[in-house]
Amino acid sequence: MRLRGIPPLLYFDHNSTTPLAPEVAATYAAALRDVYGNPSSTHRAGQLARQKFESARRVIADTLHAAPAEIVFTSGGTESNNLAILGLLRQRQSAHAVTLAIEHPAVLEPFRQLEQEGVAVTYLKPGEPIAAALRDDTRLVSVMHANNETGAVQPLEEIASAVAARRAAGQTIYLHSDGVQAFSKIPLDLSRLSVDLYSLSAHKIFGPKGIGALFVRKNTPLQRIQFGGRHERERRPGTENVPAAVAFAYAAELAVASSADIVASLRDQFEAQLVSRLHDIQINAVASRRLPNTSNILFHGVSAEALVIALDMREMAVSTGAACSSGSLEPSHVLLAMGLSRDEARSSIRFSFGRYNTMAEISALSDAVVESVNKLRHRQSKEARLAG
Amino acid sequence: MRLRGIPPLLYFDHNSTTPLAPEVAATYAAALRDVYGNPSSTHRAGQLARQKFESARRVIADTLHAAPAEIVFTSGGTESNNLAILGLLRQRQSAHAVTLAIEHPAVLEPFRQLEQEGVAVTYLKPGEPIAAALRDDTRLVSVMHANNETGAVQPLEEIASAVAARRAAGQTIYLHSDGVQAFSKIPLDLSRLSVDLYSLSAHKIFGPKGIGALFVRKNTPLQRIQFGGRHERERRPGTENVPAAVAFAYAAELAVASSADIVASLRDQFEAQLVSRLHDIQINAVASRRLPNTSNILFHGVSAEALVIALDMREMAVSTGAACSSGSLEPSHVLLAMGLSRDEARSSIRFSFGRYNTMAEISALSDAVVESVNKLRHRQSKEARLAG
Repeated sequence: MRLRGIPPLLYFDHNSTTPLAPEVAATYAAALRDVYGNPSSTHRAGQLARQKFESARRVIADTLHAAPAEIVFTSGGTESNNLAILGLLRQRQSAHAVTLAIEHPAVLEPFRQLEQEGVAVTYLKPGEPIAAALRDDTRLVSVMHANNETGAVQPLEEIASAVAARRAAGQTIYLHSDGVQAFSKIPLDLSRLSVDLYSLSAHKIFGPKGIGALFVRKNTPLQRIQFGGRHERERRPGTENVPAAVAFAYAAELAVASSADIVASLRDQFEAQLVSRLHDIQINAVASRRLPNTSNILFHGVSAEALVIALDMREMAVSTGAACSSGSLEPSHVLLAMGLSRDEARSSIRFSFGRYNTMAEISALSDAVVESVNKLRHRQSKEARLAG
Repeated sequence: MRLRGIPPLLYFDHNSTTPLAPEVAATYAAALRDVYGNPSSTHRAGQLARQKFESARRVIADTLHAAPAEIVFTSGGTESNNLAILGLLRQRQSAHAVTLAIEHPAVLEPFRQLEQEGVAVTYLKPGEPIAAALRDDTRLVSVMHANNETGAVQPLEEIASAVAARRAAGQTIYLHSDGVQAFSKIPLDLSRLSVDLYSLSAHKIFGPKGIGALFVRKNTPLQRIQFGGRHERERRPGTENVPAAVAFAYAAELAVASSADIVASLRDQFEAQLVSRLHDIQINAVASRRLPNTSNILFHGVSAEALVIALDMREMAVSTGAACSSGSLEPSHVLLAMGLSRDEARSSIRFSFGRYNTMAEISALSDAVVESVNKLRHRQSKEARLAG
């Protein structure tokens, strides 16, 4: 699908954000018009809003195999992660936590804040085993389900077992997972996987921006991080964003129902085309289990920023790793933690596909990438010769 | 305007929430479709989003007579208040703060949390002077611009002068105002009024739910309360909700441009009709300067809950005070702080009008209120006779 916007673009940056699915846009527009009440009001405009809101909660819960009471709506993935981490560890100064060096800033930064407040935090590099990092005072383990930059999927079942073993031995310990990138892209059944907290965001799954959710397993002692009215069972105050919740729920239903295999075959086809047509490239995290839609590729000797711009000139949107740190000159902390050099990190691009991409678009992208990389390398070797 | 919803309602509960203005709905729908990029992305979908987002920020700033860099977008009024209060006082355990007993829970609850963390807080009742409550260690004064339940407007200029006098004498002291209910209903010029922090919400001014803003005057040392990416000049992390910001900005423009006089004349007409047709009623906070759209009326001997339901049966939406505490059996903390008895508070109803209400609707409402109050009083006196 060629997206609107000025000018229309071929969009391959779905891990950064997604456009609204057309069906979701229609549902959202109807809810914005009809479901305007405040769910706390006793009149019928309020009661209609309450009913629609609780239906949306039930749908989200169903996609996770969770109970509706275990879903807290938030303003997005960042708030969900903050609520999970700060809500579990604040005012527990003697506690220890374990997380990964490759987490999103919305996980790393709450932990850095907690370190200033006296919490001890261990940041593991890719490959370092979680079980060995657990201590008797470890209260929280936070491991992303899949990485936003490389798509690498973490062994959450294994980690959940390690945490469960500690708990069985009497330790008070919880497991949080940032599922913002993984949700709907890989199977998830929270009735089987013993994760206590799981973060979601709507705008990564063709839903609206400004809404997300946190799964909070029953009996998890989460404290609020914002204070106000008694909304969301006193876990998150503020007038409920009912229309966005309705749209989020529909987006989640559609995303979970859509086939990951089709997107995976687009991605695999893309990588096969590049590997056969370009020398000196390397697929980052290729040895890991990866999200079906994500491809992070190191083009040796090419500036990733220049390649993003070259593709943008051809009306194709891709990005260099995390959008949140685009614009900063720092190379990706994820790629560095994986052992890439700074130069290699600065030569790596993320392609992230979505269910509206087509095989024809993938071919157009491959052609554009191959030509652009060849040109950029040619220019650079010419400059090197002139400089020499 | 008879609002959609099932069934259509006459809506007189605008202080609880407002429907989207039709023009705003159209703008929002277009932005949801076209402005899908992540403003942090360097490709043109991202850059278009960045540009629209900064335009929206400029519009909001203009309506306040502030600078764009002084506007932080948030998820709504509750977050704005939390960011202002916690952002200024957290980890300042030795500080003192002054606020009002009639503030919204989104202000009172952050202060109650801070009390647990060691901050001293003075809660003033209506009529108690602010200046006398200021101490040498007072770091923050937080006074709502107008009360959500009664519409009573606080003397913000006077309070700002008292705070300014302290500051001129060398004290580090800041003034926050919760402007969620006042914004666009009474004039505001932050280039003249020396308030340091001012909270806004879009869904109270015919804009969308899920977005608000905090004005943060230059050089105000605000700390973040959530942690993540470097959005909003590191004051509020999370992917920016650009479509909602665009809609919020347009809603703010329309709201500021609309005439308060027309709404005031509807409200005044309504009150005049009730006063002339019903005995034993009393307009709460009538001696104060009030918002032009708000009427809080005590119907002696009538259960407010019963009256809300009776009006709902006639397809008219009103509420008992704050929506956030509707459903709770506690009488309004605002009315109690004003000196009403618990029975009087439980007999008080808030009517809050909006710019789409018409004089014909006001007449229909008066008729319905008069008939319902007479019926409810009649039934009650009959029950009293039977019981006696």
